Amino acid sequence: MTDAWLTTLITDTPQAGFELAIVLSRRGVKYTQPDPGVLKQLRADYANSADGLTAASHVIALNFQTIAAANDYWRK
Amino acid sequence: MTDAWLTTLITDTPQAGFELAIVLSRRGVKYTQPDPGVLKQLRADYANSADGLTAASHVIALNFQTIAAANDYWRK
Amino acid sequence: MTDAWLTTLITDTPQAGFELAIVLSRRGVKYTQPDPGVLKQLRADYANSADGLTAASHVIALNFQTIAAANDYWRK
Amino acid sequence: MTDAWLTTLITDTPQAGFELAIVLSRRGVKYTQPDPGVLKQLRADYANSADGLTAASHVIALNFQTIAAANDYWRK
Amino acid sequence: MTDAWLTTLITDTPQAGFELAIVLSRRGVKYTQPDPGVLKQLRADYANSADGLTAASHVIALNFQTIAAANDYWRK
Amino acid sequence: MTDAWLTTLITDTPQAGFELAIVLSRRGVKYTQPDPGVLKQLRADYANSADGLTAASHVIALNFQTIAAANDYWRK
Repeated sequence: MTDAWLTTLITDTPQAGFELAIVLSRRGVKYTQPDPGVLKQLRADYANSADGLTAASHVIALNFQTIAAANDYWRK
Repeated sequence: MTDAWLTTLITDTPQAGFELAIVLSRRGVKYTQPDPGVLKQLRADYANSADGLTAASHVIALNFQTIAAANDYWRK
Repeated sequence: MTDAWLTTLITDTPQAGFELAIVLSRRGVKYTQPDPGVLKQLRADYANSADGLTAASHVIALNFQTIAAANDYWRK
Repeated sequence: MTDAWLTTLITDTPQAGFELAIVLSRRGVKYTQPDPGVLKQLRADYANSADGLTAASHVIALNFQTIAAANDYWRK
Repeated sequence: MTDAWLTTLITDTPQAGFELAIVLSRRGVKYTQPDPGVLKQLRADYANSADGLTAASHVIALNFQTIAAANDYWRK
Repeated sequence: MTDAWLTTLITDTPQAGFELAIVLSRRGVKYTQPDPGVLKQLRADYANSADGLTAASHVIALNFQTIAAANDYWRK
């Protein structure tokens, strides 16, 4: 991929950090399967599966750990 | 989502932090599947499955790691 | 839940910390499925499954990471 | 459990720390399923399954993270 | 493997760090299964499976945690 | 096991650290299933399974986190 989609891990709020964690999680998928048609079809699969949704939330939690640390947990 | 649901990771007690970890875990799901009807149906699935419940507890544990660090483990 | 079940992450010994990690892991389940009857039934499932037991030990390991850090690893 | 099986996370060597990580991983299982007969039977299951062995190594890796941090990575 | 493929964890940007995390994730696979023909065939499997893609994104998230910490989260 | 296979987590390069992470991951398996014949047979299983290989890469990523931290990320 040649576009710049991740220039910083710093966000204004925890919520923006959580949403960035979602972006990272999806990019991890997209680098592995770049075909938008296939992705769309598979999305229908896991978005309607309890296990698939928990697994998605799991990856988001890991990326949020990274982003939260980067932002020193928005402590101040 | 346009509502502000996460403005801080700081909580008064470890228990409030644990409950916030649950909120994060559910939001990770909800961002992926926003339809409340589908969510309700799937919830019945994993809430009655040993594997599904362990997986839910797993994601909560990860988010609790983040929140506990943010609060310096409520040490003092 | 309105009862106070988690007021501190600090424990006297690593073993007490490990046992607190088990409490956290079970609470993660209980918040998701509060019905004691269902929980008891599902417990029979995973407590007799190699995969289920490894998954339980996995969640305990994550919560123990948090508690061990909170206690500065009981170093002194 | 009333016996004292974990009084410190400090070990002399990384290898002793790795072996302690194995002890923690097994204890996580044993607290969930205390019956030695059931455990022995299930052990035969996962010790002969590629997925089961990888999952066991996974939990050991997590507990080793904790123990390695406790020992400041045996750096000096 | 005798080639030098990992001489530093430091990258100029978070995005380059994320892409390095993908390299690490693939190398973890390649050390276990070095046969390019088998790898190519299996790639077709998981790149068309929702679970497989989430699992890939999961490993990337873990390696990105390491690389982000190495780069002090590209904070300045 | 009585042989000394892990005397330090310090390595000269990130790549040597990654390869040590692989050693740890395999040892985690070997402590659980010491029979070389069984291990060889199971290896054929997971080395030809997309899920098995991703799971292997997952454990390596976790052990690499530990080793990278031990080496202060080979920063200087």
